[in-house]
Amino acid sequence: MTRTDPRPAAARKADVLAGLTVPVTDAWVATAAAAEPYLVPLTLAWLREHIVLATDGRSRTATNLTDSGVARVALGTTRDVVMIDAVLTETIPVAEAPSWVADGYAASTDWDPRKTGGSYVYLILRPDRIQAWREENEIADRTLMRNGTWLV
Amino acid sequence: MTRTDPRPAAARKADVLAGLTVPVTDAWVATAAAAEPYLVPLTLAWLREHIVLATDGRSRTATNLTDSGVARVALGTTRDVVMIDAVLTETIPVAEAPSWVADGYAASTDWDPRKTGGSYVYLILRPDRIQAWREENEIADRTLMRNGTWLV
Repeated sequence: MTRTDPRPAAARKADVLAGLTVPVTDAWVATAAAAEPYLVPLTLAWLREHIVLATDGRSRTATNLTDSGVARVALGTTRDVVMIDAVLTETIPVAEAPSWVADGYAASTDWDPRKTGGSYVYLILRPDRIQAWREENEIADRTLMRNGTWLV
Repeated sequence: MTRTDPRPAAARKADVLAGLTVPVTDAWVATAAAAEPYLVPLTLAWLREHIVLATDGRSRTATNLTDSGVARVALGTTRDVVMIDAVLTETIPVAEAPSWVADGYAASTDWDPRKTGGSYVYLILRPDRIQAWREENEIADRTLMRNGTWLV
Protein backbone atom coordinates (compact mmCIF):
# COMPACT_ATOMS: atom_id res chain seq x y z
CA MET A 1 0.00 0.00 0.00
CA THR A 2 1.28 3.44 -0.85
CA ARG A 3 1.41 5.68 2.17
CA THR A 4 1.29 9.43 1.84
CA ASP A 5 2.23 12.01 4.42
CA PRO A 6 -0.66 13.57 6.33
CA ARG A 7 -1.94 16.76 4.74
CA PRO A 8 -1.41 20.00 6.67
CA ALA A 9 -4.61 21.43 8.15
CA ALA A 10 -4.73 24.28 5.62
CA ALA A 11 -4.56 21.81 2.74
CA ARG A 12 -7.36 19.78 4.28
CA LYS A 13 -9.51 22.88 4.64
CA ALA A 14 -8.90 23.71 0.98
CA ASP A 15 -9.86 20.15 0.04
CA VAL A 16 -13.04 20.40 2.13
CA LEU A 17 -14.09 23.65 0.46
CA ALA A 18 -13.29 22.21 -2.96
CA GLY A 19 -15.44 19.19 -2.15
CA LEU A 20 -18.32 21.39 -1.02
CA THR A 21 -18.26 23.61 -4.10
CA VAL A 22 -17.41 21.29 -6.98
CA PRO A 23 -20.47 20.71 -9.15
CA VAL A 24 -22.23 18.39 -8.31
CA THR A 25 -21.70 17.56 -4.63
CA ASP A 26 -23.56 14.54 -3.32
CA ALA A 27 -23.50 13.75 0.37
CA TRP A 28 -24.54 10.95 2.68
CA VAL A 29 -26.95 12.54 5.13
CA ALA A 30 -27.52 10.77 8.43
CA THR A 31 -30.35 11.79 10.73
CA ALA A 32 -32.14 10.01 13.54
CA ALA A 33 -35.40 9.67 15.38
CA ALA A 34 -34.84 8.30 18.88
CA ALA A 35 -32.36 5.46 18.41
CA GLU A 36 -33.30 4.74 14.81
CA PRO A 37 -30.76 5.96 12.25
CA TYR A 38 -31.71 7.16 8.81
CA LEU A 39 -29.30 7.63 5.92
CA VAL A 40 -29.76 8.76 2.33
CA PRO A 41 -27.67 10.34 -0.42
CA LEU A 42 -28.70 13.90 -1.22
CA THR A 43 -27.28 16.60 -3.45
CA LEU A 44 -26.07 19.65 -1.55
CA ALA A 45 -25.17 23.21 -2.35
CA TRP A 46 -22.68 25.22 -0.29
CA LEU A 47 -24.16 28.71 -0.04
CA ARG A 48 -23.23 31.51 2.35
CA GLU A 49 -21.18 29.08 4.50
CA HIS A 50 -24.20 26.81 4.89
CA ILE A 51 -25.11 23.39 3.57
CA VAL A 52 -28.35 23.58 1.60
CA LEU A 53 -30.24 20.36 0.99
CA ALA A 54 -33.48 19.90 -0.89
CA THR A 55 -35.90 17.08 -0.26
CA ASP A 56 -39.57 16.30 0.25
CA GLY A 57 -40.78 17.93 3.45
CA ARG A 58 -42.54 14.66 4.30
CA SER A 59 -39.35 12.59 3.96
CA ARG A 60 -37.74 11.03 7.00
CA THR A 61 -34.69 13.23 6.54
CA ALA A 62 -36.84 16.37 6.72
CA THR A 63 -38.98 15.23 9.64
CA ASN A 64 -35.99 13.91 11.59
CA LEU A 65 -34.15 17.19 11.05
CA THR A 66 -37.17 19.24 12.03
CA ASP A 67 -37.57 17.21 15.22
CA SER A 68 -33.93 16.80 16.29
CA GLY A 69 -32.18 19.70 14.56
CA VAL A 70 -28.98 17.79 13.81
CA ALA A 71 -27.48 15.84 10.93
CA ARG A 72 -24.17 14.19 10.24
CA VAL A 73 -23.15 14.66 6.63
CA ALA A 74 -20.36 12.81 4.80
CA LEU A 75 -18.75 13.87 1.54
CA GLY A 76 -16.18 12.09 -0.53
CA THR A 77 -15.27 8.45 -0.30
CA THR A 78 -14.72 6.08 2.58
CA ARG A 79 -10.97 6.64 2.23
CA ASP A 80 -11.09 10.39 1.63
CA VAL A 81 -13.68 11.50 4.13
CA VAL A 82 -15.18 14.88 4.91
CA MET A 83 -17.50 14.54 7.92
CA ILE A 84 -19.70 17.43 8.96
CA ASP A 85 -21.87 17.64 12.05
CA ALA A 86 -24.45 20.26 11.22
CA VAL A 87 -27.36 22.06 12.82
CA LEU A 88 -30.62 22.93 11.08
CA THR A 89 -31.13 26.69 11.02
CA GLU A 90 -34.10 26.97 8.69
CA THR A 91 -36.58 24.96 6.61
CA ILE A 92 -37.94 26.83 3.61
CA PRO A 93 -40.68 25.57 1.26
CA VAL A 94 -39.38 25.77 -2.31
CA ALA A 95 -42.02 28.28 -3.36
CA GLU A 96 -41.01 30.66 -0.59
CA ALA A 97 -37.24 30.45 -0.90
CA PRO A 98 -35.19 33.59 -1.51
CA SER A 99 -33.12 33.77 -4.67
CA TRP A 100 -29.79 33.07 -2.99
CA VAL A 101 -31.19 29.71 -1.88
CA ALA A 102 -33.32 28.66 -4.86
CA ASP A 103 -31.22 30.03 -7.69
CA GLY A 104 -28.04 29.20 -5.79
CA TYR A 105 -29.12 25.60 -5.34
CA ALA A 106 -30.11 25.20 -8.99
CA ALA A 107 -26.83 26.73 -10.15
CA SER A 108 -24.71 24.46 -7.93
CA THR A 109 -26.45 21.18 -8.67
CA ASP A 110 -27.99 19.26 -11.55
CA TRP A 111 -31.63 19.77 -10.64
CA ASP A 112 -34.05 22.46 -9.54
CA PRO A 113 -36.43 21.42 -6.74
CA ARG A 114 -38.81 24.21 -7.74
CA LYS A 115 -39.73 22.06 -10.73
CA THR A 116 -40.32 18.94 -8.66
CA GLY A 117 -43.26 19.49 -6.42
CA GLY A 118 -45.06 21.55 -3.88
CA SER A 119 -44.01 19.59 -0.82
CA TYR A 120 -40.28 20.03 -1.37
CA VAL A 121 -38.27 22.12 1.07
CA TYR A 122 -34.79 23.52 1.37
CA LEU A 123 -33.04 22.55 4.58
CA ILE A 124 -30.43 25.10 5.62
CA LEU A 125 -27.72 23.66 7.85
CA ARG A 126 -24.91 25.39 9.69
CA PRO A 127 -21.74 23.31 10.07
CA ASP A 128 -20.77 22.91 13.71
CA ARG A 129 -17.86 20.49 13.38
CA ILE A 130 -15.92 19.51 10.27
CA GLN A 131 -13.43 16.67 10.13
CA ALA A 132 -11.38 15.42 7.19
CA TRP A 133 -9.18 12.38 6.91
CA ARG A 134 -7.85 9.89 4.41
CA GLU A 135 -5.62 7.32 6.03
CA GLU A 136 -4.95 6.31 9.63
CA ASN A 137 -2.18 8.92 9.83
CA GLU A 138 -4.72 11.71 9.37
CA ILE A 139 -7.06 10.64 12.15
CA ALA A 140 -5.26 12.51 14.95
CA ASP A 141 -5.65 16.01 13.49
CA ARG A 142 -8.88 15.45 11.62
CA THR A 143 -10.91 18.23 13.25
CA LEU A 144 -10.84 21.42 11.15
CA MET A 145 -13.89 23.23 12.58
CA ARG A 146 -15.22 23.12 16.12
CA ASN A 147 -18.29 24.92 17.51
CA GLY A 148 -18.81 26.50 14.10
CA THR A 149 -15.35 28.05 13.97
CA TRP A 150 -12.60 27.03 11.58
CA LEU A 151 -9.46 26.04 13.48
CA VAL A 152 -7.36 26.83 10.41
CA MET B 1 -27.34 12.99 -19.27
CA THR B 2 -27.26 9.38 -20.36
CA ARG B 3 -30.21 7.44 -19.07
CA THR B 4 -30.11 3.72 -18.69
CA ASP B 5 -33.01 1.37 -18.33
CA PRO B 6 -33.77 0.21 -14.79
CA ARG B 7 -32.05 -3.04 -13.90
CA PRO B 8 -34.26 -6.08 -13.31
CA ALA B 9 -34.48 -7.13 -9.66
CA ALA B 10 -32.30 -10.21 -10.20
CA ALA B 11 -29.56 -8.07 -11.69
CA ARG B 12 -29.75 -5.71 -8.75
CA LYS B 13 -29.45 -8.59 -6.32
CA ALA B 14 -26.38 -9.84 -8.16
CA ASP B 15 -24.90 -6.35 -8.01
CA VAL B 16 -25.61 -6.15 -4.27
CA LEU B 17 -23.91 -9.47 -3.60
CA ALA B 18 -20.97 -8.47 -5.77
CA GLY B 19 -20.68 -5.22 -3.81
CA LEU B 20 -20.75 -7.09 -0.51
CA THR B 21 -18.10 -9.60 -1.48
CA VAL B 22 -15.61 -7.68 -3.60
CA PRO B 23 -12.38 -7.12 -1.67
CA VAL B 24 -12.33 -4.61 0.02
CA THR B 25 -15.87 -3.43 0.84
CA ASP B 26 -16.15 -0.17 2.74
CA ALA B 27 -19.52 0.99 4.00
CA TRP B 28 -21.05 4.10 5.53
CA VAL B 29 -22.49 2.93 8.84
CA ALA B 30 -25.19 5.07 10.45
CA THR B 31 -26.29 4.50 14.03
CA ALA B 32 -28.08 6.71 16.53
CA ALA B 33 -28.60 7.48 20.19
CA ALA B 34 -31.35 9.82 21.40
CA ALA B 35 -32.06 11.34 17.97
CA GLU B 36 -28.37 12.09 17.50
CA PRO B 37 -27.09 10.47 14.30
CA TYR B 38 -23.64 8.98 14.04
CA LEU B 39 -21.95 8.03 10.79
CA VAL B 40 -18.54 6.59 9.97
CA PRO B 41 -16.96 4.58 7.19
CA LEU B 42 -16.06 1.03 8.20
CA THR B 43 -14.74 -1.97 6.33
CA LEU B 44 -17.16 -4.88 6.25
CA ALA B 45 -17.02 -8.55 5.49
CA TRP B 46 -20.01 -10.52 4.20
CA LEU B 47 -19.92 -13.85 6.00
CA ARG B 48 -22.68 -16.44 6.32
CA GLU B 49 -25.26 -13.94 5.01
CA HIS B 50 -24.31 -11.45 7.71
CA ILE B 51 -22.51 -8.13 7.68
CA VAL B 52 -19.45 -8.30 9.94
CA LEU B 53 -17.94 -5.02 11.11
CA ALA B 54 -14.93 -4.54 13.35
CA THR B 55 -14.37 -1.51 15.53
CA ASP B 56 -13.39 -0.44 19.00
CA GLY B 57 -15.97 -1.66 21.49
CA ARG B 58 -15.85 1.80 23.10
CA SER B 59 -16.63 3.61 19.83
CA ARG B 60 -19.95 5.35 19.33
CA THR B 61 -20.85 2.91 16.57
CA ALA B 62 -20.40 -0.02 18.93
CA THR B 63 -22.18 1.55 21.89
CA ASN B 64 -25.05 2.85 19.74
CA LEU B 65 -25.48 -0.58 18.19
CA THR B 66 -25.35 -2.32 21.54
CA ASP B 67 -28.00 0.04 22.91
CA SER B 68 -30.35 0.30 19.92
CA GLY B 69 -29.64 -2.86 17.96
CA VAL B 70 -30.07 -1.25 14.54
CA ALA B 71 -27.85 0.30 11.87
CA ARG B 72 -28.37 1.63 8.38
CA VAL B 73 -25.47 0.71 6.13
CA ALA B 74 -24.74 2.16 2.68
CA LEU B 75 -22.42 0.67 0.08
CA GLY B 76 -21.38 2.02 -3.26
CA THR B 77 -21.69 5.59 -4.38
CA THR B 78 -24.39 8.23 -4.04
CA ARG B 79 -25.55 7.37 -7.58
CA ASP B 80 -25.21 3.60 -7.30
CA VAL B 81 -26.59 2.94 -3.86
CA VAL B 82 -26.97 -0.24 -1.84
CA MET B 83 -28.81 0.57 1.39
CA ILE B 84 -29.13 -2.03 4.12
CA ASP B 85 -31.16 -1.76 7.31
CA ALA B 86 -29.59 -4.29 9.64
CA VAL B 87 -30.06 -5.71 13.11
CA LEU B 88 -27.26 -6.52 15.54
CA THR B 89 -27.26 -10.21 16.37
CA GLU B 90 -24.00 -10.54 18.27
CA THR B 91 -21.00 -8.58 19.55
CA ILE B 92 -17.85 -10.65 19.87
CA PRO B 93 -14.54 -9.46 21.38
CA VAL B 94 -11.77 -10.11 18.85
CA ALA B 95 -9.96 -12.53 21.15
CA GLU B 96 -13.06 -14.68 21.51
CA ALA B 97 -14.21 -14.75 17.88
CA PRO B 98 -14.64 -18.09 16.11
CA SER B 99 -12.55 -18.74 13.03
CA TRP B 100 -15.33 -18.09 10.53
CA VAL B 101 -15.59 -14.54 11.89
CA ALA B 102 -11.96 -13.65 12.61
CA ASP B 103 -10.25 -15.48 9.73
CA GLY B 104 -13.16 -14.65 7.46
CA TYR B 105 -12.92 -10.96 8.24
CA ALA B 106 -9.14 -10.87 7.73
CA ALA B 107 -9.45 -12.74 4.43
CA SER B 108 -12.15 -10.40 3.09
CA THR B 109 -10.57 -7.11 4.08
CA ASP B 110 -7.19 -5.39 4.20
CA TRP B 111 -6.67 -5.59 7.95
CA ASP B 112 -6.93 -7.95 10.87
CA PRO B 113 -8.52 -6.47 14.01
CA ARG B 114 -6.87 -9.18 16.11
CA LYS B 115 -3.60 -7.30 15.62
CA THR B 116 -5.07 -3.94 16.62
CA GLY B 117 -6.04 -4.05 20.23
CA GLY B 118 -7.82 -5.69 23.07
CA SER B 119 -10.92 -3.50 23.03
CA TYR B 120 -11.91 -4.26 19.44
CA VAL B 121 -15.05 -6.22 18.73
CA TYR B 122 -16.77 -7.82 15.77
CA LEU B 123 -20.32 -6.64 15.28
CA ILE B 124 -22.47 -9.25 13.53
CA LEU B 125 -25.47 -7.77 11.73
CA ARG B 126 -28.36 -9.50 10.01
CA PRO B 127 -29.79 -7.61 7.04
CA ASP B 128 -33.48 -6.91 7.47
CA ARG B 129 -34.11 -4.75 4.41
CA ILE B 130 -31.94 -4.22 1.35
CA GLN B 131 -32.57 -1.60 -1.28
CA ALA B 132 -30.57 -0.80 -4.41
CA TRP B 133 -30.94 2.04 -6.85
CA ARG B 134 -28.99 4.15 -9.28
CA GLU B 135 -31.16 6.73 -10.97
CA GLU B 136 -34.64 8.03 -10.34
CA ASN B 137 -36.08 5.30 -12.56
CA GLU B 138 -34.88 2.64 -10.12
CA ILE B 139 -36.46 4.14 -7.00
CA ALA B 140 -39.85 2.46 -7.39
CA ASP B 141 -38.61 -1.13 -7.24
CA ARG B 142 -35.59 -0.55 -5.04
CA THR B 143 -36.52 -3.00 -2.26
CA LEU B 144 -34.84 -6.38 -2.79
CA MET B 145 -35.10 -7.81 0.75
CA ARG B 146 -37.85 -7.25 3.29
CA ASN B 147 -38.06 -8.67 6.83
CA GLY B 148 -34.86 -10.57 6.21
CA THR B 149 -36.17 -12.35 3.12
CA TRP B 150 -34.97 -11.78 -0.43
CA LEU B 151 -37.84 -10.83 -2.70
CA VAL B 152 -35.88 -12.08 -5.71
